[in-house]
Amino acid sequence: MAEHLSQSELDYPFKLLEYFNGFRVSKVIFSACELGVFDLLLKSQKPLSAECVAGELGASVDGMERLLDVLVGIEILEVETIDGTAVYSSTDVANLYLAKGSAKSLHDMIIYQSQTIYPLWNNMVDAVREGKNQNEKTFGLPAEDIFQAIYRSEEEMLKFMGLMNSSWVLDGHDIVTAFNLSCFNSIVDLGGCSGALAREMAKAYPSSSVTVFDLPQVVETAQKHFSEDDDTIGFQAGDFFSGEIPPADLYVLARIIHDWNEEKCLKLLKKIYDSCQPGGGVLLVEALLFENRRGPVLAQIFSLNMLVQTEGREQPASQYCSMLTRTGFTGVQVCRTGKSYDAILAVR
Amino acid sequence: MAEHLSQSELDYPFKLLEYFNGFRVSKVIFSACELGVFDLLLKSQKPLSAECVAGELGASVDGMERLLDVLVGIEILEVETIDGTAVYSSTDVANLYLAKGSAKSLHDMIIYQSQTIYPLWNNMVDAVREGKNQNEKTFGLPAEDIFQAIYRSEEEMLKFMGLMNSSWVLDGHDIVTAFNLSCFNSIVDLGGCSGALAREMAKAYPSSSVTVFDLPQVVETAQKHFSEDDDTIGFQAGDFFSGEIPPADLYVLARIIHDWNEEKCLKLLKKIYDSCQPGGGVLLVEALLFENRRGPVLAQIFSLNMLVQTEGREQPASQYCSMLTRTGFTGVQVCRTGKSYDAILAVR
Repeated sequence: MAEHLSQSELDYPFKLLEYFNGFRVSKVIFSACELGVFDLLLKSQKPLSAECVAGELGASVDGMERLLDVLVGIEILEVETIDGTAVYSSTDVANLYLAKGSAKSLHDMIIYQSQTIYPLWNNMVDAVREGKNQNEKTFGLPAEDIFQAIYRSEEEMLKFMGLMNSSWVLDGHDIVTAFNLSCFNSIVDLGGCSGALAREMAKAYPSSSVTVFDLPQVVETAQKHFSEDDDTIGFQAGDFFSGEIPPADLYVLARIIHDWNEEKCLKLLKKIYDSCQPGGGVLLVEALLFENRRGPVLAQIFSLNMLVQTEGREQPASQYCSMLTRTGFTGVQVCRTGKSYDAILAVR
Repeated sequence: MAEHLSQSELDYPFKLLEYFNGFRVSKVIFSACELGVFDLLLKSQKPLSAECVAGELGASVDGMERLLDVLVGIEILEVETIDGTAVYSSTDVANLYLAKGSAKSLHDMIIYQSQTIYPLWNNMVDAVREGKNQNEKTFGLPAEDIFQAIYRSEEEMLKFMGLMNSSWVLDGHDIVTAFNLSCFNSIVDLGGCSGALAREMAKAYPSSSVTVFDLPQVVETAQKHFSEDDDTIGFQAGDFFSGEIPPADLYVLARIIHDWNEEKCLKLLKKIYDSCQPGGGVLLVEALLFENRRGPVLAQIFSLNMLVQTEGREQPASQYCSMLTRTGFTGVQVCRTGKSYDAILAVR
């Protein structure tokens, strides 16, 4: 692979220029999402001109036309010419993932990436220099309390919970079926946020009771904005660092360990271990790095994201295994899903 | 193509997630460039540990290690393990295009994209809504005078001229040989900036005299920072909108038309036409859009870039041809290079 890239790139760096342009392609999709382009095209059921889209969304015709044309170029929209006018329509991919209402919508993930992560990454040079997050430089918020930054307003909390919700809509089913968890009668998802992963658990294991445990204001927001009519999951408010955790047969830590420094992670795993009965377990869900440092690129990028936003990092499976065994857990099993997130199961 | 993307993406949106991640991949390369990673690895001649790179560049070991690992993942660096320590080395592509000193270095293009274009694109939603550039919102500079914004300080002028210089290092040779221009004895590059394209002209047509015409402070900076020992090109200071332009057999307008509104473009083309003798010509250099709106993606993205930074846009060849013939030029020929920029030649 490396040689292949290098060889053709030496003549003309097409791939390199594509990488340089990556931020612009991201912002094209993000901006269209923020402006409501995909929602309008889904609703309209017929191709629309740039003038019509701009009119409906309160945008300039010229700017909208250029934006729509890039979306055609990257195959997210379709264009045809009818009576001399270019008219645009959505693709199945845009309807499924980019429109707001769809069951698989990534709309909330996009809003968070565009409005919070994109500006944070503008300070990556400083993050690498200082080895710490850039919440202060980017948003004027203290670097120490990362969830004070992430949850700095009700609006920001909703955006972050939307991000988490979106990503379990994508990967949730693969995660909860990575191992057969039907032997665990009670499952507690620590830091379970909006409850999206817990819902997948409840669907896959209907005879188990599934509870989301999170900070009081998160639980309140989850129940107010993310609850579903046929919800079978429960919610419990608390703080897994400073308070007690509820008893359970299986504890889930999905994208929790990667937020914190090693000392706090070991303290949390020890608290879980102490709450477990023999045969009880813990399921870690993270984007696992390869041991040889060569990928996956997404997990490597997530690790830099953790640098610029939190105090944690992504790890290879061996590091999680080491933390688990040092805490006392045994029988560690690793499952790579091939998607963005992977799963590790261990028992007491 | 569109159907192919859609079909596989419906199962799991790998390509879409790659697009969402584009801004992070861009910033990884940009940050490494700004920190001097590629210069250090080129100079060192041997693989270096993350600790060593971080030490030399005044960065954190942890942050540097994560950055280097993403660069390995995207095949821009190589890693091997020696005595249990991961050591990193450059690829030929990085040495040729990303290190500062190389003849084909894109270092200055990267600095400009990272520090000026990336923050501008954070206001793309407003650019599309308002249909105008975001210099005011991004940098507190007036939207009306675009080169007052671009040249707002000596440092910014140097950065912009570095960007222009870098891109003609890549595409210059293809542009000047798109047509046989040896019949033109005197060539004036209007808005020729650092002189990089003029140098390619002088190399390809050694019996022609080649002059760069640009604003006084640009000419001064070009001579101070971008002149080369064996330079055969000349410089002349002036303003092609408000002043006279020097006589020439061929006028070059490379990435000039795309900056301005149609009224100003027609005015400038008319001034050139009036200065031409019969048989004299004009060479336009721009990234040409396809007539069918389906690409090239790079040119479509450039057009949005013009929206967020200038008052102009990219066009399909037919629009340039129309402007040229309306001004009086004839014999319009279009040459697509297959690279980023294309060429159009017309004569009086």
